[in-house]
Amino acid sequence: MNKIIVQKFGGTSVADTDKIKNVADIVVREKENGNDVVVVVSAMGHTTDHLVKMAKSLTPNPSGREMDMLLSTGEGISIALLAMAIQAKGYDAISFNAMQIGIITENIHSKARILDIKTNKLKENLDRGKIIVVAGFQGVTEDGDITTLGRGGSDTSAVALAAALGAERCDIYTDVEGVYTTDPRIVKNASKLEQVSYEEMLELAHAGANVLHPRSVETAKQFSVPLRVRSSFNIENMGTLIVGVDKMEMYKPVAGVAADLSQVRVVVCDVPDRPGVAATLFGALAKENISVDMIIQSYANKVSNTNDIAFTIDISDLEKAKIVLECMNDTIGASDVKVDDNIAKISIVGAGMIDRPGIASTMFEALAKLNINIKMISTSEIKVSCLVDKKDVQKAIKSLHTVFDLESNVIADVKGDLPDV
Amino acid sequence: MNKIIVQKFGGTSVADTDKIKNVADIVVREKENGNDVVVVVSAMGHTTDHLVKMAKSLTPNPSGREMDMLLSTGEGISIALLAMAIQAKGYDAISFNAMQIGIITENIHSKARILDIKTNKLKENLDRGKIIVVAGFQGVTEDGDITTLGRGGSDTSAVALAAALGAERCDIYTDVEGVYTTDPRIVKNASKLEQVSYEEMLELAHAGANVLHPRSVETAKQFSVPLRVRSSFNIENMGTLIVGVDKMEMYKPVAGVAADLSQVRVVVCDVPDRPGVAATLFGALAKENISVDMIIQSYANKVSNTNDIAFTIDISDLEKAKIVLECMNDTIGASDVKVDDNIAKISIVGAGMIDRPGIASTMFEALAKLNINIKMISTSEIKVSCLVDKKDVQKAIKSLHTVFDLESNVIADVKGDLPDV
Repeated sequence: MNKIIVQKFGGTSVADTDKIKNVADIVVREKENGNDVVVVVSAMGHTTDHLVKMAKSLTPNPSGREMDMLLSTGEGISIALLAMAIQAKGYDAISFNAMQIGIITENIHSKARILDIKTNKLKENLDRGKIIVVAGFQGVTEDGDITTLGRGGSDTSAVALAAALGAERCDIYTDVEGVYTTDPRIVKNASKLEQVSYEEMLELAHAGANVLHPRSVETAKQFSVPLRVRSSFNIENMGTLIVGVDKMEMYKPVAGVAADLSQVRVVVCDVPDRPGVAATLFGALAKENISVDMIIQSYANKVSNTNDIAFTIDISDLEKAKIVLECMNDTIGASDVKVDDNIAKISIVGAGMIDRPGIASTMFEALAKLNINIKMISTSEIKVSCLVDKKDVQKAIKSLHTVFDLESNVIADVKGDLPDV
Repeated sequence: MNKIIVQKFGGTSVADTDKIKNVADIVVREKENGNDVVVVVSAMGHTTDHLVKMAKSLTPNPSGREMDMLLSTGEGISIALLAMAIQAKGYDAISFNAMQIGIITENIHSKARILDIKTNKLKENLDRGKIIVVAGFQGVTEDGDITTLGRGGSDTSAVALAAALGAERCDIYTDVEGVYTTDPRIVKNASKLEQVSYEEMLELAHAGANVLHPRSVETAKQFSVPLRVRSSFNIENMGTLIVGVDKMEMYKPVAGVAADLSQVRVVVCDVPDRPGVAATLFGALAKENISVDMIIQSYANKVSNTNDIAFTIDISDLEKAKIVLECMNDTIGASDVKVDDNIAKISIVGAGMIDRPGIASTMFEALAKLNINIKMISTSEIKVSCLVDKKDVQKAIKSLHTVFDLESNVIADVKGDLPDV
């Protein structure tokens, strides 16, 4: 039995028919290697933007069901075109949308999670020697409604298909060459990481690295699907392999540095120090689907018997969060809410820090030497994040890069716009 | 229980979001009349052309399955947008593609026929008071492959849905105001027919009238679905009602005149006069899916013991037909094949000619008086067609129009380009 390779191509890789021909070349090359190939594609380039624009011109609040119906047509176009391009090269190809395969999701629109993937149609067609082209980003409910998977959806489709099929590997083709040691905007001697662990990639993704959405990495980790991030425009480059720590050849204590400039800090001041306040506050935010990243609750002021609660959220959720806080003020009785958008989160990530104490303090010392004030700290087993002023991002990254000896092995990816310094 | 009205809107009626809003107005108006409404839509304006162009840039011969996959996305867009536009007006709407409903077709691509329509999902949603928006032109095989219905496909979808649901009426909204008495290019005092029978409409459609594809009229006739052709841009005009002869209020012997300039005549000369030759010839043409319209076999020449066989086909099938005839020449042994593309078919159509002899000869006399040579004749119960030179089309129509007293009731529709005279 042949090995199965799942390949995923994003919107920029299939942006026009010439690029689709290039993708067909890559697909056929993998087939020629003697593997069974399942290809997952996103909608072509700006298709989605165009569809959203038409919808918005009809109504400011289109229904989730109809929006998903509309958006799912984007991949319908790209799968058919890619199948044709592969056929034109003399190979047998067949395209399927999510409904045809049975990529079953929750009955939630615009951000459904995959519950199950039927594999009979896929296996049947692979057995017939066909290259299968599958629509990413979409699913179908048990009732036959079309859903979409939201951000990182096509990557997640590809990883979930690889898991369901017991694939050898899932190759995520994109417009970058892999997971980079350094964001070239900040550190010049950037080089590509050969390997990184799921855990590190997850922390990096959450910390602001934009290469892969955390969902797809989580799914890959859960089902132990080896993931390779590589460029669809430079096929000779093998990209970065993302595997379990046990499969990794070697790792440094700190694998990389990332920065996230898209967050804001919210401080809820003088909250009464009584049980349940934090639960009420963060429960209300969660109900509105606002992801909270770092949370700090100060020691209670024994005189006023109040706390300050600070947390960070994505700037796009700020308006929603303000409404939640206003609605809640009778319940939690804060004296004030302060918002600080002049912040950046700098994170060091590495599976190797688990059994090496002192990594966090080395980071704090490095920042202190540069006279960078740390506004908040949060840590996980393999990550330390510090909130600093936006203006300090570049020098912080450069310094940490040197301190942790990452000249050839630092992952520094930045989410959001860097400030001019 | 409410009456069900099926409405169908073609590509020009949903060409942009403003036009989609106009369609939503018409739909809601019908719902406000107290009816249950099922709306069938085609792809937006030039969507199909755009998709075909992309496919052709990848391969000159895209596979039928993938082409249908590609084209079906067109209606996916228009149904979702129309559902949103209806929702924006405060009404509950839900869109379905052919796969979601179960519009089951033959396993033939680009021109599949509908075999069955599942109505449970439709009825369930109508019972909940929803306006249902359905993708026209598409179907799905029992195996779950997407098909398209070919020319006149969306009209056929609408009529088949109306039949399956036992609808009160199927309204075909288009860019003309109905079935016209006269092509304004030829006869100035055009007026709209209030009613026409299925049979007349069928003959007119086959004879070159472009308002409705014969398939949809045939389906309507088979299931006795009253059809109304009306304008989506002038909702006050009730258009033309197409019903069974038994339902018609009155009819003249000749209801209309039509011309078809898109045919060519092929003469296969000196074919041996023995049994089976015609069957072999037309069997081979049918196998290549070439529709033959008129057929004349001359009396056998007793000296050479050969026949001439003449027939007409659509000009778009000419190249295919030539290949078939070349391949067959060993079998049928013709001396020559002559092609005449300077022809036009003039037809008079009317359910009233069934029990009134002399209608055909009146037509021949009228043409003779104008010194118009008749090249071929074919007749049906309610139609007489004559093949004439292209240059004679206009004067033939004008004359027949007068001879049959159709000043207020002639249907003259012309398929193809009129010659300059």
